[in-house]
Amino acid sequence: MTGQREVLVAQDVRRSSERAKRLPRAVREKQILDAAVEVFSQHGYHMASMDVISEVAGVSKPMIYSYLGAKEELFGHCIRRESNRLFEAVRDGIRPDVPPDMQLWHGLRSFYGFVAEYRQSWIVLHRHALAAGDPFAKEVTALRTRAIELVRDLVVSAGTQRGLASQAEFSGEGMAAALVGAAESLADWWLDNPHVPEGVLASWLMNLTWLGFNDLVEGSVWRPLE
Amino acid sequence: MTGQREVLVAQDVRRSSERAKRLPRAVREKQILDAAVEVFSQHGYHMASMDVISEVAGVSKPMIYSYLGAKEELFGHCIRRESNRLFEAVRDGIRPDVPPDMQLWHGLRSFYGFVAEYRQSWIVLHRHALAAGDPFAKEVTALRTRAIELVRDLVVSAGTQRGLASQAEFSGEGMAAALVGAAESLADWWLDNPHVPEGVLASWLMNLTWLGFNDLVEGSVWRPLE
Repeated sequence: MTGQREVLVAQDVRRSSERAKRLPRAVREKQILDAAVEVFSQHGYHMASMDVISEVAGVSKPMIYSYLGAKEELFGHCIRRESNRLFEAVRDGIRPDVPPDMQLWHGLRSFYGFVAEYRQSWIVLHRHALAAGDPFAKEVTALRTRAIELVRDLVVSAGTQRGLASQAEFSGEGMAAALVGAAESLADWWLDNPHVPEGVLASWLMNLTWLGFNDLVEGSVWRPLE
Repeated sequence: MTGQREVLVAQDVRRSSERAKRLPRAVREKQILDAAVEVFSQHGYHMASMDVISEVAGVSKPMIYSYLGAKEELFGHCIRRESNRLFEAVRDGIRPDVPPDMQLWHGLRSFYGFVAEYRQSWIVLHRHALAAGDPFAKEVTALRTRAIELVRDLVVSAGTQRGLASQAEFSGEGMAAALVGAAESLADWWLDNPHVPEGVLASWLMNLTWLGFNDLVEGSVWRPLE
């Protein structure tokens, strides 16, 4: 009986190892990247260890090297995956059939929704990628540029409709850059103040920026009393 | 005659070298830091050469090492000096005797005025210090925290006066974080769009943010149509 049980266990082990080997490469890479983002978010780029990533992923180190490269390359893969994920979440959250303020609202909700759901991704992107310096910081700058273009198209199309484009107090691109910086900075502040619900953050930004923009649209302009 | 002239030249050289040696340490350090900021802003942290800094400063490398340390330490000194300069320029630009919107306006004018006058300092602080990673990136984060506190005090005091403090749509600290991020991001955008006059940047931000804040003060609140 003992002998038979051992054979069964051995068969199980062999089967599970065959199953493991048969996992498609995409699934393996996802396991590795998920583990890497978790470990990088906790320890930062320099202190993260490939041994720990291998352990958390349940994938051997040689397989990680073969699929996604050494630590530097792996960190680059993480940043690119999370950048694309974040950008696509925000872009797909904007419904083009609603008024511009609602488009911005949905975009902000999607942004803070992403940061709430993938907090580790945001930490890797906004804290560790910048802290690790170039070439990683450059990837985050590229993401920021894409975000500014997305918001600029929204702001410019609203501004052009209402004849704002020629006013000195209005700049689609400048205001888009300011808005993206405001959203990022508030997301960063949120990491240290996680008790605030995500919808509240988006509401603060709408009240700070859109009511301002709305007043511009109505023809009001703030000028210094001098 | 020739002999006498040589003696005079030799005396001149000795005198000028004595004068050089007699320069107070603070003056020497300023020469070195000015040159270092110039060279770092052009080449970034990693590519900047101590030989070039020594040449631009007109100060020997051994003297640089003795006064301000090797490249890593020197870069840290540059970041701290420029951080303090920038913070003090903005703080001193805010006149506490004017209404809150004018205080913010003056603060923004001072900020963009600093970036216009010390463009190299801003490039070192916002591009190269972040790109060089920690410990340099940390210094920039500390500067951002001080800036958020400064703006928070301004926004909170205005908000409290008008009974905003308890409204869910208002957050002194959150909005201060958003404002500082917006100002930084627009300053960064400005590096690539230097044709825009500095006062125009400050005006865009006032129109984007203060008119929003002003509407909040008047009791208007933006809410999504859902």
